[in-house]
Amino acid sequence: MSSDNILSIPDLIAKKRDGLELNPEEIQQFIGGIKTRDVQDCHAGAMLMAMFLKGMTEGEICSLTTSMRDSGERLKWPQFRGLVVDKHSTGGIGDKISIPLAPALAACQLKVPMMSGRGLGITGGTLDKLESIPGYRTQLTDEQIVKLISTVGCGIFSQSPKLNPADRYLYSIRDVTATVSSNALIISSILSKKAVEDLDALILDVKYGISAVMKTPELAENLAHSLYKVSEMLGIRTYCYITEMNNPIGYCIGNAIEIQESIDLMKYKSGHSNDLEELVCEQGGRLLLLTDKVKTIEQGREMIRETFKNGSALQKFHDMIIGQGVSETIAKQLISDDESIIGSILKLGDVHYQGISSDTGFIQSIDSFKLGTIVQRLGGGRLKSTDKLDYSVGIRLLKHVGDPIQQNEPWAILYADTDATQRYPKVLDDLTTSLIVSSSSVEPLQRIYKVIGST
Amino acid sequence: MSSDNILSIPDLIAKKRDGLELNPEEIQQFIGGIKTRDVQDCHAGAMLMAMFLKGMTEGEICSLTTSMRDSGERLKWPQFRGLVVDKHSTGGIGDKISIPLAPALAACQLKVPMMSGRGLGITGGTLDKLESIPGYRTQLTDEQIVKLISTVGCGIFSQSPKLNPADRYLYSIRDVTATVSSNALIISSILSKKAVEDLDALILDVKYGISAVMKTPELAENLAHSLYKVSEMLGIRTYCYITEMNNPIGYCIGNAIEIQESIDLMKYKSGHSNDLEELVCEQGGRLLLLTDKVKTIEQGREMIRETFKNGSALQKFHDMIIGQGVSETIAKQLISDDESIIGSILKLGDVHYQGISSDTGFIQSIDSFKLGTIVQRLGGGRLKSTDKLDYSVGIRLLKHVGDPIQQNEPWAILYADTDATQRYPKVLDDLTTSLIVSSSSVEPLQRIYKVIGST
Repeated sequence: MSSDNILSIPDLIAKKRDGLELNPEEIQQFIGGIKTRDVQDCHAGAMLMAMFLKGMTEGEICSLTTSMRDSGERLKWPQFRGLVVDKHSTGGIGDKISIPLAPALAACQLKVPMMSGRGLGITGGTLDKLESIPGYRTQLTDEQIVKLISTVGCGIFSQSPKLNPADRYLYSIRDVTATVSSNALIISSILSKKAVEDLDALILDVKYGISAVMKTPELAENLAHSLYKVSEMLGIRTYCYITEMNNPIGYCIGNAIEIQESIDLMKYKSGHSNDLEELVCEQGGRLLLLTDKVKTIEQGREMIRETFKNGSALQKFHDMIIGQGVSETIAKQLISDDESIIGSILKLGDVHYQGISSDTGFIQSIDSFKLGTIVQRLGGGRLKSTDKLDYSVGIRLLKHVGDPIQQNEPWAILYADTDATQRYPKVLDDLTTSLIVSSSSVEPLQRIYKVIGST
Repeated sequence: MSSDNILSIPDLIAKKRDGLELNPEEIQQFIGGIKTRDVQDCHAGAMLMAMFLKGMTEGEICSLTTSMRDSGERLKWPQFRGLVVDKHSTGGIGDKISIPLAPALAACQLKVPMMSGRGLGITGGTLDKLESIPGYRTQLTDEQIVKLISTVGCGIFSQSPKLNPADRYLYSIRDVTATVSSNALIISSILSKKAVEDLDALILDVKYGISAVMKTPELAENLAHSLYKVSEMLGIRTYCYITEMNNPIGYCIGNAIEIQESIDLMKYKSGHSNDLEELVCEQGGRLLLLTDKVKTIEQGREMIRETFKNGSALQKFHDMIIGQGVSETIAKQLISDDESIIGSILKLGDVHYQGISSDTGFIQSIDSFKLGTIVQRLGGGRLKSTDKLDYSVGIRLLKHVGDPIQQNEPWAILYADTDATQRYPKVLDDLTTSLIVSSSSVEPLQRIYKVIGST
């Protein structure tokens, strides 16, 4: 400890190492030190490991989050006060909820400046999926963001270098120092990005299951409780869902194919996924309730559903992608009813494999981890951050949990554009063993395990 | 975990983070990665913190030590097998044991390639003390070291850049990431340096007390046990002392003044410190016993004492410092009986302060922490690694623990070469309050609390 009672960076690390609580000034000193380079990589590695192993109080996480938020520029929406919303999911397989949700909320006059991320491991990324639309630009200037939110009402874009540089730095260190899966660091990373968006209300969708970061409902609930508390401490009206992530969400897994499925929902096309629709309507409806646009969650859900039925969400989607660089021609074609032209824009692989059931009965589960791994290994996801994606890889489920199935009946189609068995020898084995059939009838999927929130 | 079961550096960090034992190959991979830069500063910071917080088994520490030892070149002494010895102290105030010990052992025909360190905090460094002798060079080439050990038999020098680079790297990271005081990291750092010296026998002097890294005898004993075991695992005959470090060792604290005191012992001058003499004779005698030069520790102690009485240690000191760059003129003057010329070479500060007792009674304790702090703050030690030292700062005790003292009687002299109260306002207060006087008689100091070893 130096003589004037200001702790040095090593002193701050020692304090956390010993399991003591850092006060807001100390956390600010550490985060501020990233910019001035008083905090060097070795300091960051040691501090993150100490935070990981010793944990952080909710007060510390809140301070960490605000310091990270304030490490760069912030979006500001004084003109839309009370209307600015977003949702964040901890990531899942087939989780394209954001893609129809943002336009639906914009169609309800809310403002959705949705800063999104890339795929991580087997988990697809919203930005990667949207980039399967030719011309879609994820990097927007602050001016482009303001224009998009002011005119269309929604945008799905990447974090600009000027926003939250501390998070970007810490994430790059966490990624290589085995300190990613710390609740404190997960929460501050998620919420500092959301706080930069200057939100009024936020939905947090915390997944549990074989494809989620949190393997059990209890772990997810534990994370969700802290996420909820810290988010509310930041002054954001928050509602938290703890949802099942053993089975894929909806029918489609992949990049282009998930955009197809999102468009199908926004068109309210017959045969669209009920699973996906209910999650989108629930989360969108909740944001309408949090912003006092409706009086009950039932009203909220119906208001969102109506944007799909009446085409207003689809129109917002059309406007949004044009605002993000897609040509008017392509945008128009995507919302048209011409399936073949949509398929030529959002191309799927020419080589098809079928998943066939070996039993008769009812579908008990579909292993989202194996299916996610297949898509990733065939090029739909990254093994390292510099990998280029193949947007055309995808899996379409023909059935879902609870559905009856016959022996030898196909239940999934895998689209690839090269010989998949050469690229990933386990592909057919993984596909086959993903399906678990029960001889007795199976309840339909209950996605929502628990909620945390006051509305 | 990568597909071919070789762990990546982040995987190794995760394994230690989770408290699992790293195998020798994994530890070698990590230490080897320092040279190839696969291990970057952020990895090192996180791994060191995980090692600090999760601990290491003695097997892991042994692997870490051998990997560090093998990270660079090593000294080799096939021609002196069975004779090569050293001692290491965890550091104390007034601890100049090495300076008379190395020449005494050389006078007994042992070989002492003593790689030493700099001062750290309030703890003086053997190399710093020796550099108060004009011309003394601590950086020697491998050839110079071999020549010195072959001809004189002892040398006290710094670690060359080619020896143990992994330790130098890890130490630089530990120093700024609050991971210095980990038993595992202390042990591997100490013993890898000693293992590089290719020793047959080693004395480890683990201090406890207010000025030691370990504050209690129990903490010191805990460290000593592991140090002993790992050192023996490395094939070095080892004996470990756990010694008291509340009171300064001997009568002198500072750089030039400790060289003066060391020379006084080697001259066996009347009034030299009995405390220092007994520690040197005990540790030197033990090394003679470990190398089978004597049959009992008593014989060993007397053999060392004899090198002081007969001047052979002083002659070895003279030869050693010439071998390390000191001119023959200065070397000869230092071993002469002319006190004034010695004082003009090993200069002390012109400004003197007296420590005066405010009570009559017996000296119960002398606060080595406060005295060490005074010397450090007046320029005899460093606050940061780039600080230049003032060798002339020093404290001479006129009395020691157990001695009777009268009110107003001086018990210490502080030498400084500027106005010390300007440089360190608390100096006189610290000096005065360092002395604790008891009204009843006090037992003389018992330095050795416990020993660990089989001889």
